[in-house]
Amino acid sequence: MALKAIRGSFFDFIDDPWKHVGAEQKSARFYADGMLVVENGKVKAYGPYDKISSQYPGIAITHIKDRLILPGFVDGHIHMAQTRVLGVYGEQLLGWLLEGIFPEEKKYSDPVYAKEGAKHFFDDLLAGGTTTCQAFLTHAPVCTEVFFEEASRRNMLVIGGLTGIDRFAPEGSFDTADNFYRDSKMLIEKWHRKGRNLYAITPRFPLGCTHDMMTSCQKLRKEFPDVWFNSHLNENPHEIRDTNAHHCTHDYLEAFEKYDLVGPKFTGGHSVWTSDDEYKRLSKAGAAVSFCPLSNLFLGSGLFRLGKVTDPAHRVRFSLGCDIGAGNKFSILNVLDEAYKVGMCNNTLLDGSVDPRNFDAAEAERNKLSPYRAFYSATLGGAHSLYLDDRIGNFDPGKEADFVVLDWTSGQKACAWQTSQIVDKNGPKDMDEAAKLLFSIMILGDDRSVDQTWIMGEPAYEKAKN
Amino acid sequence: MALKAIRGSFFDFIDDPWKHVGAEQKSARFYADGMLVVENGKVKAYGPYDKISSQYPGIAITHIKDRLILPGFVDGHIHMAQTRVLGVYGEQLLGWLLEGIFPEEKKYSDPVYAKEGAKHFFDDLLAGGTTTCQAFLTHAPVCTEVFFEEASRRNMLVIGGLTGIDRFAPEGSFDTADNFYRDSKMLIEKWHRKGRNLYAITPRFPLGCTHDMMTSCQKLRKEFPDVWFNSHLNENPHEIRDTNAHHCTHDYLEAFEKYDLVGPKFTGGHSVWTSDDEYKRLSKAGAAVSFCPLSNLFLGSGLFRLGKVTDPAHRVRFSLGCDIGAGNKFSILNVLDEAYKVGMCNNTLLDGSVDPRNFDAAEAERNKLSPYRAFYSATLGGAHSLYLDDRIGNFDPGKEADFVVLDWTSGQKACAWQTSQIVDKNGPKDMDEAAKLLFSIMILGDDRSVDQTWIMGEPAYEKAKN
Repeated sequence: MALKAIRGSFFDFIDDPWKHVGAEQKSARFYADGMLVVENGKVKAYGPYDKISSQYPGIAITHIKDRLILPGFVDGHIHMAQTRVLGVYGEQLLGWLLEGIFPEEKKYSDPVYAKEGAKHFFDDLLAGGTTTCQAFLTHAPVCTEVFFEEASRRNMLVIGGLTGIDRFAPEGSFDTADNFYRDSKMLIEKWHRKGRNLYAITPRFPLGCTHDMMTSCQKLRKEFPDVWFNSHLNENPHEIRDTNAHHCTHDYLEAFEKYDLVGPKFTGGHSVWTSDDEYKRLSKAGAAVSFCPLSNLFLGSGLFRLGKVTDPAHRVRFSLGCDIGAGNKFSILNVLDEAYKVGMCNNTLLDGSVDPRNFDAAEAERNKLSPYRAFYSATLGGAHSLYLDDRIGNFDPGKEADFVVLDWTSGQKACAWQTSQIVDKNGPKDMDEAAKLLFSIMILGDDRSVDQTWIMGEPAYEKAKN
Repeated sequence: MALKAIRGSFFDFIDDPWKHVGAEQKSARFYADGMLVVENGKVKAYGPYDKISSQYPGIAITHIKDRLILPGFVDGHIHMAQTRVLGVYGEQLLGWLLEGIFPEEKKYSDPVYAKEGAKHFFDDLLAGGTTTCQAFLTHAPVCTEVFFEEASRRNMLVIGGLTGIDRFAPEGSFDTADNFYRDSKMLIEKWHRKGRNLYAITPRFPLGCTHDMMTSCQKLRKEFPDVWFNSHLNENPHEIRDTNAHHCTHDYLEAFEKYDLVGPKFTGGHSVWTSDDEYKRLSKAGAAVSFCPLSNLFLGSGLFRLGKVTDPAHRVRFSLGCDIGAGNKFSILNVLDEAYKVGMCNNTLLDGSVDPRNFDAAEAERNKLSPYRAFYSATLGGAHSLYLDDRIGNFDPGKEADFVVLDWTSGQKACAWQTSQIVDKNGPKDMDEAAKLLFSIMILGDDRSVDQTWIMGEPAYEKAKN
């Protein structure tokens, strides 16, 4: 049947909670007993069960009890070809790439290995609740092909693209700027907007790109103005110095600006060391960054300043990213845990107790990752940063029906007793209780909190039952 | 039968890996096919299966396949009465205590609630692989009684004590210095060295203690030189300033030294902002600190300097602590994940790329939490810091047979494929492979990696099977 309904407790967002300090509930919707009507994979109707069900008499209903249903998670920064090498020991960014990453990524030039990797990659994403990702692939076109093939098979909305690198990497892990241009063009024509697939021009990072490679990107960006753009930005201080030396730039963003690459649909991953001036330019350009706390802590890159990107004077779009394999967990729920902690660490510096000159109560307030801010960022905010909020991110009619079903009692043993102080067996009765459960899920929980993941109104993952 | 054997792959430590830079294997033992003989709960023999089994013909053997067996984890800093309030939102140390913690801890004055809490607490610990903890309780003697009763029921080696606080907390959450002295004395006489229970004089933190309370601690320490001592140290910069103002001290450690409290069996939790001079004094005194990265990140307290405490010029004993409920996960495996990340974040500062004056390659090397350093700290190192290494921490004959059984394929979906590149179905064949699996477990895994936990040679926890 083309028309179907899901009944349960729904939580989604209609606005940016950072715009509603002290009244974050205004940014969200919650229906303790809600209903979502799906037609051909898209939301047809959404609201309280009583109201919606009366409009669709006789409709087939899947009733999901004792759970919270949210829009699927959006991951703005992840590397498919690193699915197997989470947890490479002992190195910061540049050493980590050379020691552990390039050798593994090279294997994705083999279509058999790439297919195996892609299968694991999407399985792992769905198990963590992620329904849309923007992915780095490798320099080998076959890896990009396999990525889009596997995403198509699962009918997932994804962004990806051939990863451009023509220096810094060892033999066999890079290609020329000309080949990159030729292969990217072929791949864009083949995959962009085919099904739910979207293409991103993807220079790996400026330190891995010559002037010619950046020029290839510039040409592609002009020829294909509809495609996305994905790269890295200000990840590690050593890398930043080397980047500026290599590209003769004053700051990292300039290495992209020189080639007219910064604008809507641009994402710069990490942005740990971005200056105020760069944030102003990103904001003005409508460009985005991706906050990858698992990775930033694992590689020791540093503490992203959430209160800077959310400064209303120059708000910058941002997504969350697990950044597998520098990030060590696939689920955005684990990303939210670390994101919260990064905000809190920054705040001990911003309260002026170490250095009184650092006191900034306003930035500190914005650093606090409330459950509203967190799950907005994981859903509608992520979609907004990627210019996908017309298609996904919440349950507005017309949107594509990707969603996750969260269980607040699952996870480490402590979860059940902790959440039993928030709600009884009847579950959350109002938005405040639901938000408290969401905070418990992001801090105490993990992928076990993800009970089901649905793509375009169809079940795509269900957790194994004990 | 009093005599029994466990066969499997065993990994334990005989020395501090920080003493063997570049040759950490010298600090460990690994038997791919090993055997542990237990008599009345204690290790009778340990070594390769071929050798040991020939010495004990006909002994009943439990064969644990496809797992790594390690000594039980030691948690040096945890709060039993915070078992239900993991993840209190939005506050740093002092606000967090007042908003979320004191109201919950007060409930443990009721023996019924305290018993329920204690049951959850020990269940959660065992599920995370922890077999020994040093716990804070509350100001109410009944909470301490319940802690030791429940630990006795499970035959676990624990350290705990009435928590002294006579200021800073709201009404109903503190007691007088005289009552603390009287009740502590009673509890020491009743519980210390009864079964496996050990007592610690436990002033909560100097900011919560008047001069009279510290004097009560000093009297107890003199009267009962065999007991342990547990408190907090240099957790949060705001707290540190207030502590020095309140106690008229130059630094935090002095608030303990004034009352002759710093020596063997002393543990100061957190130690995030400890100065070089304080570390020298701690080292000289044979005192210990406890590294609680989950908590230090969750409350934003800051980044513990592992490379400072492990400086051979003034090595300081340290344990790991999950510090529930400021820490958000019970398992020491999650603690190791965050501990690794804290070391890496410090190293980006120590490589001099931000401020060349901070360059310190030696400290940076010590900050790297290799699997050897990590699991040493979680077992023998933790035991050493608590002066318990004569009883637990490894499988030397005579030690008490507490151990964990780890599964490197469990956890998030990604674990199985990642570890399949390290070992095939036959498991680790040498120490290097086993150490790599341990690193995967601490970075990718969590409590799901803990398959079984044994206390004194008896099964105490087994994970539910899918």
